[in-house]
Amino acid sequence: MCQLLGMNCNTPTDITFSFEGFRRRAGLTDHHTDGFGIAFFEGKGVRIFRDNRPGASSPVADLVSEFKIKSFNVISHIRKATRGDINLENTHPFIRELWGENWVFAHNGTVEGVGVCEECHYQPIGSTDSEAAFCCLVSQLRERFNKKPTEKEIFDAVVEITSEIATKGVFNFILSNGHWMIARCSTNLYYVTRKAPFCKALRDDDVEIDFSQYTTEKDKVTIIATQPLTKNENWVKMKNGGYVFFKDGDLIEEIEGTLPNNQTHV
Amino acid sequence: MCQLLGMNCNTPTDITFSFEGFRRRAGLTDHHTDGFGIAFFEGKGVRIFRDNRPGASSPVADLVSEFKIKSFNVISHIRKATRGDINLENTHPFIRELWGENWVFAHNGTVEGVGVCEECHYQPIGSTDSEAAFCCLVSQLRERFNKKPTEKEIFDAVVEITSEIATKGVFNFILSNGHWMIARCSTNLYYVTRKAPFCKALRDDDVEIDFSQYTTEKDKVTIIATQPLTKNENWVKMKNGGYVFFKDGDLIEEIEGTLPNNQTHV
Repeated sequence: MCQLLGMNCNTPTDITFSFEGFRRRAGLTDHHTDGFGIAFFEGKGVRIFRDNRPGASSPVADLVSEFKIKSFNVISHIRKATRGDINLENTHPFIRELWGENWVFAHNGTVEGVGVCEECHYQPIGSTDSEAAFCCLVSQLRERFNKKPTEKEIFDAVVEITSEIATKGVFNFILSNGHWMIARCSTNLYYVTRKAPFCKALRDDDVEIDFSQYTTEKDKVTIIATQPLTKNENWVKMKNGGYVFFKDGDLIEEIEGTLPNNQTHV
Repeated sequence: MCQLLGMNCNTPTDITFSFEGFRRRAGLTDHHTDGFGIAFFEGKGVRIFRDNRPGASSPVADLVSEFKIKSFNVISHIRKATRGDINLENTHPFIRELWGENWVFAHNGTVEGVGVCEECHYQPIGSTDSEAAFCCLVSQLRERFNKKPTEKEIFDAVVEITSEIATKGVFNFILSNGHWMIARCSTNLYYVTRKAPFCKALRDDDVEIDFSQYTTEKDKVTIIATQPLTKNENWVKMKNGGYVFFKDGDLIEEIEGTLPNNQTHV
């Protein structure tokens, strides 16, 4: 299985603190060593860095850490291959243009038998179930809406289409078009929103940061991850079948899912 | 105007020597300072690095030089903005998925009034004439061929569609799907094929390389560029309206164009 990391905020934010903890799981603190990728939205453009080497030791990941790129929306993924060879075209996040926007997608889990017909608008390039599922999603969206619909219509359609795909296996994912971020949970997905009053956070490798040194009172930064990245924050555990729609760091829409309890990880 | 650089070869080749000379034109030896980009095919995947800072001083370009990534097909571009703001989404090369492959495109020149209809398969993300022309090309290809046709059919269709676009201005471009490389000349485009017996080449900034130290007898490496990058090689100057189709470093198809003389730059 793989791990996901997403960030959605109302001010361009440097994800380095979270990314550094996350990438350690790709070879140091965990075994997700079959490639990593990270996509930073910048205006309508996307900077995307991918490597089929482990995130913990990849020189591409070193560059990402050194650059401290600031962005409103970031999606990252570290891979433990279950379907598809270890190569660049099978490395998340995947990207397609839809309605003149970059759409970026990363998946954790395995979905069996997602069909992408030859007539479908978007075709997979690699051999992962994840890219096939993404192509299926954006093809169906494009078929339903020839022009870009409202955000509410997009969220509802994404929920409907991906709920169907999710019947085929485990389907945790993070999706963004640079304006908003949608995440779905099948098994493991947590989020935390950092806002004033900002305090110190302690990463699971015991590195500490004082967010109040780097932020203003208006900042809102939401982090979404397969497992909590810090020890002392209230990460909300999403439920099976749950969806969240974040914009400018705020939770705009939510579908709760079906697990009995909303557990928090402190 | 901008400058183009392409490489097509029969063995994975490090483009650093050519790229280092090329990027010096982005701020040092010339004025193409409005961004740079480079795409390396790796299997069916693409590593793409873009920056809206000048290629000569961009840390992303430093990384590219340090990494010495080997590839069969590379397309690079340094930008002098004529249409569209200086930002990431307007930075070449542009990329789209067509028939389950990555297609990469970079343009030098300006084409006026290329229309991309709302129903077109591919929509531009940024505001350049170049991306609109690329979307127009791949949309028409997708419309003509629902499945991937033969390479000859692709070349003929690219020639037909882009000859029409070229009536709207200056249209030098390089295009690749990772298997082959097509280039078109309106004003300035040169190529050289390096093969055994390999010899020394002298870059225009007087840096010398002895290719025989880095190659085998079977290697073939074709470099395509807006201006010759070395002083002592026989660069073939393409003619206005000329097209070339390279595969594994070999010239497979050619349309000569209409300029009176095929000049060489020695």
